Amino acid sequence: MIEQVIAHVEESKSRNVERLCAFLKIPSISTDAKRKPDVRREGEWVRDLLMGCGIKAELLDTPGHPAVLADSGPADGGPTVLVYGHYDVQPPGDLSLWKSEPFTPTIKDGSIFARGAADDKGQVLTYLLAAEAWMKIAKKMPVRVKFLIEGEEEVSSPNLGPIVKQHRDRLACDYVVLSDTAKWDDATPGITYGTKGLVYKEIIVTGPKQNLHSGSYGGTLTNPGNALARIIASLRDHDNRVTIPGFYDDVKPLSDAERKMMAEIDFDEKKYQAYMGTSALTGEKGYTTLERRWARPTLDVNGMFGGFTDKGAMTIVPAKMSAKVSMRLVPDQDPEKISKAFETAVLEAAPEGVKVEFLTHGAVPAYVAPLDSPGVKAAARAAELGWRKAPMFMREGGSLPILPMFRSILGAESIMMGFCSQECNLHGPNEFLGVDDLHNGTKTVAYFWNELTHA
Amino acid sequence: MIEQVIAHVEESKSRNVERLCAFLKIPSISTDAKRKPDVRREGEWVRDLLMGCGIKAELLDTPGHPAVLADSGPADGGPTVLVYGHYDVQPPGDLSLWKSEPFTPTIKDGSIFARGAADDKGQVLTYLLAAEAWMKIAKKMPVRVKFLIEGEEEVSSPNLGPIVKQHRDRLACDYVVLSDTAKWDDATPGITYGTKGLVYKEIIVTGPKQNLHSGSYGGTLTNPGNALARIIASLRDHDNRVTIPGFYDDVKPLSDAERKMMAEIDFDEKKYQAYMGTSALTGEKGYTTLERRWARPTLDVNGMFGGFTDKGAMTIVPAKMSAKVSMRLVPDQDPEKISKAFETAVLEAAPEGVKVEFLTHGAVPAYVAPLDSPGVKAAARAAELGWRKAPMFMREGGSLPILPMFRSILGAESIMMGFCSQECNLHGPNEFLGVDDLHNGTKTVAYFWNELTHA
Repeated sequence: MIEQVIAHVEESKSRNVERLCAFLKIPSISTDAKRKPDVRREGEWVRDLLMGCGIKAELLDTPGHPAVLADSGPADGGPTVLVYGHYDVQPPGDLSLWKSEPFTPTIKDGSIFARGAADDKGQVLTYLLAAEAWMKIAKKMPVRVKFLIEGEEEVSSPNLGPIVKQHRDRLACDYVVLSDTAKWDDATPGITYGTKGLVYKEIIVTGPKQNLHSGSYGGTLTNPGNALARIIASLRDHDNRVTIPGFYDDVKPLSDAERKMMAEIDFDEKKYQAYMGTSALTGEKGYTTLERRWARPTLDVNGMFGGFTDKGAMTIVPAKMSAKVSMRLVPDQDPEKISKAFETAVLEAAPEGVKVEFLTHGAVPAYVAPLDSPGVKAAARAAELGWRKAPMFMREGGSLPILPMFRSILGAESIMMGFCSQECNLHGPNEFLGVDDLHNGTKTVAYFWNELTHA
Repeated sequence: MIEQVIAHVEESKSRNVERLCAFLKIPSISTDAKRKPDVRREGEWVRDLLMGCGIKAELLDTPGHPAVLADSGPADGGPTVLVYGHYDVQPPGDLSLWKSEPFTPTIKDGSIFARGAADDKGQVLTYLLAAEAWMKIAKKMPVRVKFLIEGEEEVSSPNLGPIVKQHRDRLACDYVVLSDTAKWDDATPGITYGTKGLVYKEIIVTGPKQNLHSGSYGGTLTNPGNALARIIASLRDHDNRVTIPGFYDDVKPLSDAERKMMAEIDFDEKKYQAYMGTSALTGEKGYTTLERRWARPTLDVNGMFGGFTDKGAMTIVPAKMSAKVSMRLVPDQDPEKISKAFETAVLEAAPEGVKVEFLTHGAVPAYVAPLDSPGVKAAARAAELGWRKAPMFMREGGSLPILPMFRSILGAESIMMGFCSQECNLHGPNEFLGVDDLHNGTKTVAYFWNELTHA
């Protein structure tokens, strides 16, 4: 049966690209309140596609954006798999940097360019298309497959935990499987076994009650801009170590075995640096680039703003200045503890004469999965069949808040298969997914469910 | 004759307020290219008012915004005075902080609220209204008065120097007089004898070629936001002294006499602090608030921007981050030297992995005038007549680039009479001029020209 299913996927290649373009056209930006109807429309699109395959699917309303819940029903045997993904996307950012419109999918040089092409619509679609192929050819799924495709991943999934708790029985599964990470390189699929946690803070520094003339008043009060710079500068030392007291206390040291494994990986630093377009690879002293990227906590400014920001000059002491600062965490750092330690350190660094306030936009722990389960082994075989190349086992600097949540509520570990390029520009301009990635990914998923029947 | 002139000013009080409102309605924002026609329209308004008084006036075109040049013609005697002012204004800034529209003049609690009410349209108008009164009542001016009212002060007067050079003979004068500074307090006019210089820089820090996902890439490259914070923080120490090498080298130390004079001034620090709405008076260690405000150089952030600045969270390492930083200078700091020293210090502080570029939005030396000229004495008598209170001699932290320029090209020292409130919100929201300030200022100017006849 699997041969016919794969043959069907092969035949559907160009039609599947069209399906992805239709999926990418809807600007389902979950961070933008104005896009709420678009996010819902996209959820309906996913539900309708599943229903069209003959899989029971529904839209679950939440206080935010809805989630799609579907279930292929009892199978002849094998483990039950829950497919997780998200149909919401990041904002496009600076439009002038996009070579084509972010919500007008454009095919160029064998890739599909659009916001969400890789993160995560294109990768989610491989599961929907693989299910469609199985349902069309075999009239049933080889194992029981459930789907939970949400619309709030890019806003830190505030309602996913409650949904999973509420529908715990309906979502019961042996494995969670998802594709929201990347391949190892163009030719090699990736199985990601660890993600970093995240604490995302906004610092708001206020000084005078309004903008003041910098000549008439400068030098007699604390400038919120200078204060914010001092605060942020104080959070890392010249070795790029985070100086927040207690920040590293709960960091599980990298084992010698894992450091050795990472050192043996054929990681092309020059190519990586050229992709980023930076003049140097820098970071925490004492760790390799790959160690810092995969397994060391970080602290980064995401944005700063305040005062006069137009062209030219306006001579003011600004009333207010803000920065968005995120920290990526590793096991066993506790997001709540780190968030509190951050606030304490910022308040400590703030000079006299300003008020400092905080917003928290996300707090998620890190996740590292076991590598030896039958499910992971089936995934590795499927990836090798889909790509004709064995997958690479990787860690990832991004955060997937849902992994520790699935572990705690459903008792299921997650399997992360990566189908998109490492250089897919997710969260940046000109995000893309290779046409072959969509195709090989769809085949991999189709194989995966088959492999699970003898896992 | 002066009594009749003053009587006419008294009678014209409400009509003069209407004139100011008409003047304030035109959004002559010189920093905004889109407002170029409005700036010109405002120049024509000034020219037409002078022509209407019977004073020959013309609009001088420049590569930027035009200037108004006028001359009352030879007088029976006395010194020749050049009135300088500007009819352009700062941008309104954050509109949500304005209680009334910035270009819809609104009278409330005895004041006229609008952008430019104090800086400088309202104060310029006192000269135009005083001239109108003299020309109407006496049919001639008591001394020869020339006018140079420009439209580029808020963009650092790039074309004023060339105009003054080109029209050096037509502008020949014994004194320059201007009102672009404030009163001492509500009841006391001010004569300002010193202003600070200014160097206004923009720092542009670029790192990766585009915004990158902060999880996937953070920790392996230099973040332009963290880099900019470190750079700015490095420019001042914890005593709020500027750390740029050579910054203080040419600073003329405050004389014991001037420190004593400043110490004896009845300066209400509590009221000053309450006006600013700051929780502490801070600044360079070792100097009083008034010394720092009037006579010590400063370094202030005017604005910072880059990366993700909308609501919520976007997890990126930004490609680019910028800050606008201005330094106020005192005699004898050289703006060019300070500008270069700033760039050197910034480059020195920049960490590996980012590129740093600069824009310069202004470079102006400080100015301190002699206090014992007949012109200054006449101005002091006139201010006392206009306000029924002797004026206070003051220095000012703001910069007037034109003062050292007039000194060098015309060989004339400047007399600065201040008619607006210290708390007039210039450059901020809700800028205003008191109706009585307009009135007393107009009387002071009318008296001033009379006093000059026996100076």
